[in-house]
Amino acid sequence: MSRPYPSCQGPPPPSLREIPAIGKRAPAPCTCRRSPAQIHALIAYLPTHGQNVTGVFRSPQFHPCFRVSPVVRRGRISVTTTARTAANTLTATLNPRIRHSGFAALVTSAEDAAAMIGNGATVGMSGFTGSGYPKAVPTALAARAEAEHAEGRPFRVRVLTGASTGPELDGVLARADAIEFRTPFNTDPFLRDRINKGETDYVDMHLSQLAPMVWGGIYGDLDVAVVEISGITENGQLIPSASIGNNKTWLDRADRIILEVNSWQSAELEGMHDVYYGTRLPPNRVPIPLIRPDDRIGQPYFDVDFSKVVAVVETDAPDRNAPFTPPDENARLIAGHLIEFLEHEVKRGRLPRSLLPIQSGVGNVPNAVMTGLCDAPFDPMTAYTEVVQDGMLDMLDAGALRLASATAFSLSTDAAERFNSNAGAYRGKLILRPQEISNHPELVRRLGVIAMNGLIEADIYGNVNSTHVMGSRIQNGIGGSGDFARNSFMSIFLTPSTAKGGKISAIVPMAAHVDHISQDVQVIVTEQGLADLRGLAPKKRAAALIQNCAHPSYRPLLEDYFARAMRDSWGLHAPRILPEALSWHQRYVETGSMMP
Amino acid sequence: MSRPYPSCQGPPPPSLREIPAIGKRAPAPCTCRRSPAQIHALIAYLPTHGQNVTGVFRSPQFHPCFRVSPVVRRGRISVTTTARTAANTLTATLNPRIRHSGFAALVTSAEDAAAMIGNGATVGMSGFTGSGYPKAVPTALAARAEAEHAEGRPFRVRVLTGASTGPELDGVLARADAIEFRTPFNTDPFLRDRINKGETDYVDMHLSQLAPMVWGGIYGDLDVAVVEISGITENGQLIPSASIGNNKTWLDRADRIILEVNSWQSAELEGMHDVYYGTRLPPNRVPIPLIRPDDRIGQPYFDVDFSKVVAVVETDAPDRNAPFTPPDENARLIAGHLIEFLEHEVKRGRLPRSLLPIQSGVGNVPNAVMTGLCDAPFDPMTAYTEVVQDGMLDMLDAGALRLASATAFSLSTDAAERFNSNAGAYRGKLILRPQEISNHPELVRRLGVIAMNGLIEADIYGNVNSTHVMGSRIQNGIGGSGDFARNSFMSIFLTPSTAKGGKISAIVPMAAHVDHISQDVQVIVTEQGLADLRGLAPKKRAAALIQNCAHPSYRPLLEDYFARAMRDSWGLHAPRILPEALSWHQRYVETGSMMP
Repeated sequence: MSRPYPSCQGPPPPSLREIPAIGKRAPAPCTCRRSPAQIHALIAYLPTHGQNVTGVFRSPQFHPCFRVSPVVRRGRISVTTTARTAANTLTATLNPRIRHSGFAALVTSAEDAAAMIGNGATVGMSGFTGSGYPKAVPTALAARAEAEHAEGRPFRVRVLTGASTGPELDGVLARADAIEFRTPFNTDPFLRDRINKGETDYVDMHLSQLAPMVWGGIYGDLDVAVVEISGITENGQLIPSASIGNNKTWLDRADRIILEVNSWQSAELEGMHDVYYGTRLPPNRVPIPLIRPDDRIGQPYFDVDFSKVVAVVETDAPDRNAPFTPPDENARLIAGHLIEFLEHEVKRGRLPRSLLPIQSGVGNVPNAVMTGLCDAPFDPMTAYTEVVQDGMLDMLDAGALRLASATAFSLSTDAAERFNSNAGAYRGKLILRPQEISNHPELVRRLGVIAMNGLIEADIYGNVNSTHVMGSRIQNGIGGSGDFARNSFMSIFLTPSTAKGGKISAIVPMAAHVDHISQDVQVIVTEQGLADLRGLAPKKRAAALIQNCAHPSYRPLLEDYFARAMRDSWGLHAPRILPEALSWHQRYVETGSMMP
Repeated sequence: MSRPYPSCQGPPPPSLREIPAIGKRAPAPCTCRRSPAQIHALIAYLPTHGQNVTGVFRSPQFHPCFRVSPVVRRGRISVTTTARTAANTLTATLNPRIRHSGFAALVTSAEDAAAMIGNGATVGMSGFTGSGYPKAVPTALAARAEAEHAEGRPFRVRVLTGASTGPELDGVLARADAIEFRTPFNTDPFLRDRINKGETDYVDMHLSQLAPMVWGGIYGDLDVAVVEISGITENGQLIPSASIGNNKTWLDRADRIILEVNSWQSAELEGMHDVYYGTRLPPNRVPIPLIRPDDRIGQPYFDVDFSKVVAVVETDAPDRNAPFTPPDENARLIAGHLIEFLEHEVKRGRLPRSLLPIQSGVGNVPNAVMTGLCDAPFDPMTAYTEVVQDGMLDMLDAGALRLASATAFSLSTDAAERFNSNAGAYRGKLILRPQEISNHPELVRRLGVIAMNGLIEADIYGNVNSTHVMGSRIQNGIGGSGDFARNSFMSIFLTPSTAKGGKISAIVPMAAHVDHISQDVQVIVTEQGLADLRGLAPKKRAAALIQNCAHPSYRPLLEDYFARAMRDSWGLHAPRILPEALSWHQRYVETGSMMP
């Protein structure tokens, strides 16, 4: 079937469809996708004025209260009621986070909402690095999947998110074996296990690219969006939660929308977001008008087509992130080497005194670097990054950072409580944006971001594996590291020189998988030291990495390998002993250690 | 030593330093870097008015004609002459390509110009895919290196270019063993041999990134620029040649400048270039105001600080590019599969009828695709690419392409003659830009480029090796393929399914080196068929690649490997048999064939 290329990507015109005035017909054709329960709730709300309402709705089924024309799945049915229905569903309007009566009328249970998601559906869910993910509906969906499976019926969905979520989303759904397909990022151990057993298809993607690819039709139609928000305004706009991620895209693209309004999220989040509505599909893209991390180029709320909203679920549940371990000696050493290097770059006139906007991956080592930067002799910095971790809050508190732009929080329980109890203090210092914008190559390159990311292993030439343990098991995913490393002003990777108590070396003869090619890896730092690889040809990169970064227990092995490669390799541009290149990984698989 | 971070990258203000009026002092301090020969030539020009001249010059040496203060290398010396020197050096003014008398006075021999380049110098040379490279000075420099070597003295330089050059640059210098270090791209067989024997350090780089890295000070000071141009205007601006590459940066950053004015290049090139002067170092970067491939955002000439120009060398020599072989059956099949796919995408509404701006790598297969596109049922297209090949000229002639933006030509001898004899006909249809702009991630993403590049091998998961044959020998380099593939709207790789008469398979269990990670590889096409990898998890990518793209003689081997990997791999996300993953490459090294 032939269809025209969409001339523009972007939200539907902000034509928030209001409930028709009492006694009036709803504008026809109504494009709403509400379930009978929602139609019921809507009508339950309206007759409090004591009048009847007539409207035209699309519904998968119809509600028994109504006199309706024949049911057509997803077709249009006429609904008329003269019944004054139970006003007790109106308790939802008491929630101060829901300041729009139309939405209040759609409040329903997580179970009823989950019932609107069919087997095989493609679902766009909120959530980025364990914050702002829906908590009630996925849990109910998992229960439903288990019930279906118990009856011998298949039930699995395709799940798209911003990035990683929490145990109440990926965890419960993975345990229920309810995820057929997952993209673009995951950190949940249960889901990881499904993926590595070959039971769930997983596409780890550059995080800036999922939204445009969904707009471009690559992932098919988006059946449902399940998005956590922190509130709904009087005008029916949505106040984002602790992450923005791909939510704008899910709201714009999904056929139906389920909202979770989470009262646990700070009400002070309102106004901290900057949702840019200028993205388009080519050839209609224009420059993104952001030239400083501080710039606001959008609006603080999501627009939403009310007619697509089928359920509003109330929650009061915390984001669940693991606490950071206090920086250990290795993390402190890594931070020390890095800060010394940055000072050196400032002294040589290659970085300004306030550095350039920093991006930091998630984890204990990057967090330790942030902590170290609190006392570093730089002018107040900015961050243009994916995620605000504990360490960045510390930097903001200490005045070392004057502004952080991100798409999400990823705070430990303690830090989240600290933030929530005093969120107003961060007003003007924190901006959350869609991940399409926080990670946009155009902006990363323009701002000259200093990218700092972690790795699993680097080979002696500086090719980095961030994702595939021993080349075949996925750890998390590439996430935004590729968006930043490729386009940054300076791309730095940080890692302890060994893992698993010394049984794995972070510097290996050959990486068993490559996520960041050597061109995108300019500096590597371990607790042993720092290798500045910029402008170095392969053999000089190898010398620097082996000498400065490898652990002393692996250094002689690497030196021996490299010396023999210099003698025996087919080519001497990047010498390699092919039969031995992956032998360390094989030894680990066989013996549990890379050490011979 | 501490120095301030430069507040802006960009050209020096266009303060073209004119020769002082007769009898006046040159503005002091003069920052020129002229050799004695140049000072001589300048003074030879001036006294034709019968007057003396007094100036202040910097020079590495001084000329015996002049009464001078003590010599200081690169220091400032006072030069005074009362001698009326030989007017015969003025023959240069007869060259109509040199419309500025100050430059005409600097005309000298290639040998004298080469004498100004010292052992160990870092030299920025023009040249991109075999066009617009200097031809006389590098040849003279190679002769000089050979003479020095014959005397037992070291002589090697560090060479930075736009991309590949020609035999008169990389070839002669490599044969003379005069290249210590080379970046960012090479295709010369003699230099390749030096690199793969470990005799020359080579850094293959993303082509968009060299200029900003040089501005950022990563490659140290640029001692000399040697830039081919097609002429000099009356105002002392430079008319670029058949490639722009990094020339703006070399001219802005080098201490001294040697120009080659090549009369072989079409005079009609004047006006075809668009040199953007808005690049900066962060944090002073701003949006690049280009939203269509057609947009002109700069000026047709290079600005140059006249005081840095130390020599002008006249040449009349062709760019030397190998002829394209006529498309063979495989190339036609690849083009056919690709065009069918693009038609399908248009039909599904995922591409506009004029497609999106196309980028095409260099080589016979991409050239065949261009030829195939001449008859494809699309609306007139545009190209936003690095290089204009023969096939793109054909498309322009056929009206299939309405505009091509690039940084260089890469034309066969026949096509270059065709272009030169009728260059005016392409006015308004061709724009050449600096490679920083032609390959800029901001613009590649904004325009939504359809990237088409070649490869050496792809593994079954779609990771691509474009550079390292059997993992250790460099073929050419990554070039601009990473700039385009990562940020494109659609990233396509094209290759015959085998090489070396079937002894090498383009689809292998594991790539022996990775340049393009699977996230950046969306479509792979061989003569066997096309694999659309978008949105597919690793095992589905493997199935598609083995089934659609592998050669039938290798397909059973790949199927067998993959089936055993599914059984034996440590992880089943991306199954892999580590000890066997590189065995095909090892077999090739040992036996000359990947086939068992």
